[in-house]
Amino acid sequence: MSNTTNVNLVQMGQQAKAASFILATLTAQQKSTLLQAISQQLSDNIKPILAANNQDISAAKTNGLSEALIDRLLLDESRLQGIIDDIQNVIQLADPVGKESASQVLDNGLRLTQRSVPLGVVGVIYEARPNVTVDIAVLALKTGNAVILRGGKETLHSNKALSEVIRAALVSQELPADAVQLITSPDRTLVTELLKLDQYVDMIIPRGGQNLQRLCSEQATIPVILGGIGICHLYLDSAADLSRSTDVIINAKVQRPTVCNALDTLLIHQDIAAQYLPELAKKLASQQVKIVGCDNTQQILAAFDVTLADDKSYATEWLSLTLGIKVVPDMDMAIEHIRQFSTGHSEAILTDNIQCAAEFVNQVDSAAVYVNASTRFTDGSQFGLGAEVAVSTQKLHARGPMALEALTTYKWLAWGDYTSRG
Amino acid sequence: MSNTTNVNLVQMGQQAKAASFILATLTAQQKSTLLQAISQQLSDNIKPILAANNQDISAAKTNGLSEALIDRLLLDESRLQGIIDDIQNVIQLADPVGKESASQVLDNGLRLTQRSVPLGVVGVIYEARPNVTVDIAVLALKTGNAVILRGGKETLHSNKALSEVIRAALVSQELPADAVQLITSPDRTLVTELLKLDQYVDMIIPRGGQNLQRLCSEQATIPVILGGIGICHLYLDSAADLSRSTDVIINAKVQRPTVCNALDTLLIHQDIAAQYLPELAKKLASQQVKIVGCDNTQQILAAFDVTLADDKSYATEWLSLTLGIKVVPDMDMAIEHIRQFSTGHSEAILTDNIQCAAEFVNQVDSAAVYVNASTRFTDGSQFGLGAEVAVSTQKLHARGPMALEALTTYKWLAWGDYTSRG
Repeated sequence: MSNTTNVNLVQMGQQAKAASFILATLTAQQKSTLLQAISQQLSDNIKPILAANNQDISAAKTNGLSEALIDRLLLDESRLQGIIDDIQNVIQLADPVGKESASQVLDNGLRLTQRSVPLGVVGVIYEARPNVTVDIAVLALKTGNAVILRGGKETLHSNKALSEVIRAALVSQELPADAVQLITSPDRTLVTELLKLDQYVDMIIPRGGQNLQRLCSEQATIPVILGGIGICHLYLDSAADLSRSTDVIINAKVQRPTVCNALDTLLIHQDIAAQYLPELAKKLASQQVKIVGCDNTQQILAAFDVTLADDKSYATEWLSLTLGIKVVPDMDMAIEHIRQFSTGHSEAILTDNIQCAAEFVNQVDSAAVYVNASTRFTDGSQFGLGAEVAVSTQKLHARGPMALEALTTYKWLAWGDYTSRG
Repeated sequence: MSNTTNVNLVQMGQQAKAASFILATLTAQQKSTLLQAISQQLSDNIKPILAANNQDISAAKTNGLSEALIDRLLLDESRLQGIIDDIQNVIQLADPVGKESASQVLDNGLRLTQRSVPLGVVGVIYEARPNVTVDIAVLALKTGNAVILRGGKETLHSNKALSEVIRAALVSQELPADAVQLITSPDRTLVTELLKLDQYVDMIIPRGGQNLQRLCSEQATIPVILGGIGICHLYLDSAADLSRSTDVIINAKVQRPTVCNALDTLLIHQDIAAQYLPELAKKLASQQVKIVGCDNTQQILAAFDVTLADDKSYATEWLSLTLGIKVVPDMDMAIEHIRQFSTGHSEAILTDNIQCAAEFVNQVDSAAVYVNASTRFTDGSQFGLGAEVAVSTQKLHARGPMALEALTTYKWLAWGDYTSRG
């Protein structure tokens, strides 16, 4: 396993590409056996993995990281068991590789088909949580892809231990260890170098904040799947059933405020604002939600503590118990606000008016658009996809929750009988 | 039509995005009517269009451009009629927008579907032939997308005339002219600026040579569809029916040598090389094909004029009547050569051995892989796709010939009944 400490990225790329050719020929059965081996080896190595994680936790404490961040880094026996159990779920999913579609015999006798195949080599850049190391490796191997992983420096010991166990499992199946490689140096220039390794890497998935996404879109010569940034809006229409709306708004904001599909801005029709906002504000206050609102909101909620919103606040993904509120004269202005500030992740309308619902759905150009539902549903498991690689907010290749299929491409295959073009 | 002379790209981007929201709501019928109007207006304006083209042709002659290039620039009445006729074909194609798939009612009652929608704004950078201006505008409008076009400076007058006619047709349908915008300044920095207009442009299609592709992959912050570069290989296996192979090889090389799916390198199994190459060389010579071959090829073809090949020649897309030839010890070495030098466009094997055919198809990772057929088939119309936007050699979003569907994405739509996440 010398290569987990090797930072010759070109060599890592070559090794990954070579491994990917072998992975691409595995049957679904062989890939399941491999995943079982990974699951088993993780179970057999719980102690050393937790010991390695303990090194990260100690370093985090020494470096004064926040409690919340330390909690994200932490592995314990039950969390690790959860990660291992998730592998069993992935094993149960259908293998998307090898499906043939659009098959036809052309007029000239050429038998043409589109066969789904692995992408090849996937590069993943991520932060904090060490479970991503196993999740991504397992999803990539399930679909016959090699991966180059670049985790955060805070979890380096954990990631090393986890990736070494996975590499040992690969070797136990007589497969190349380099199907899963971890960049172990914290040198940040390696990220930029990875982003330009287009000769060997077929796709980059950055799982991190806005700065990482921007770096990837600016520096990468490899196709990048941007995502995971969600400035999410909910438009409360004048025709909404207000008695049923509060629960949905609270759910969208409060159920898990730190994730990308949590609500950031409530847009409320002016005809119902004066009546409804004080009632909503009371409920929000009882959930410790802070309000950042427009002039109008401030006036209506004079009895509450409302910070004045500006364009910068509407352009903020709160990731916390803060809610932007804006009173709008009509749905068109709500849509205009969404077009200006949305990151294309998830937006919702609450209304009982069927025309408004249809119009909103047609006009709003985001990965997920909801009628009378919380934005919190944008998630691979909620959508029944079984596995989530990332949530894409771009439009090419995959949009919204990305499952196994997003780790495949297709090739056109054609069988002739010494057929020439006329 | 002031904006066809405006080089405020941010403004062009905003106008394109605004237009795209309107286009996205058009019905298939409305889009057909629009394309009919474009077809009609082009027919009504043949004279001014040809006059504009004449300006480009005169300039080309003054500037000493090659006959071949001038022929690519040239529009005459019959070519223009061909372009107009093609619009009728596009009108007949099914509209890929608005298809819903993966529809299901989730356990919680949420009704979920994936609806195909236009991408939004597509940027296309292309060279030489003015027909691309109409082709791309028509395909984009058919799929409800706005376009920003950047043609070559050699066809600026033609492109201006064509895009102004299209814009007039848009206006005649009470649609925004800015759905189709042409960058009319030859300033090359505008290309780089366009590539970074990610706030407004959803996809970039560069239709041009290797330098343009490289510029796009390095500079773009917008997803780019690379393609159109084909270093194509044909492996002649020892089990091939040689009496039937020559026609296929000649077809792949000679039928249209200047295009991306023409054959560049023949890899031939050593067991048949001495017997077959002289026979093939005679046929190639009769077609004026020059041979660039390995040591072994040179020895076998001592009676012919064979230039010695090196890695640089194998890395060349000939786009002319030159053929690289390499004798290989076995299929694995042929596949290794392909992996090293292929651009991922089109490769073929000729063999009567069914295991070799299957193995080749599994191991070769290109957009199109052929058994017993010419590489020349990689083409939207040959594949029955009706229209070709470009030929993608990358793996994300679209691979191989890209048809109308490649100009769409999808959004997830979900209808609930004031549904919260549990």
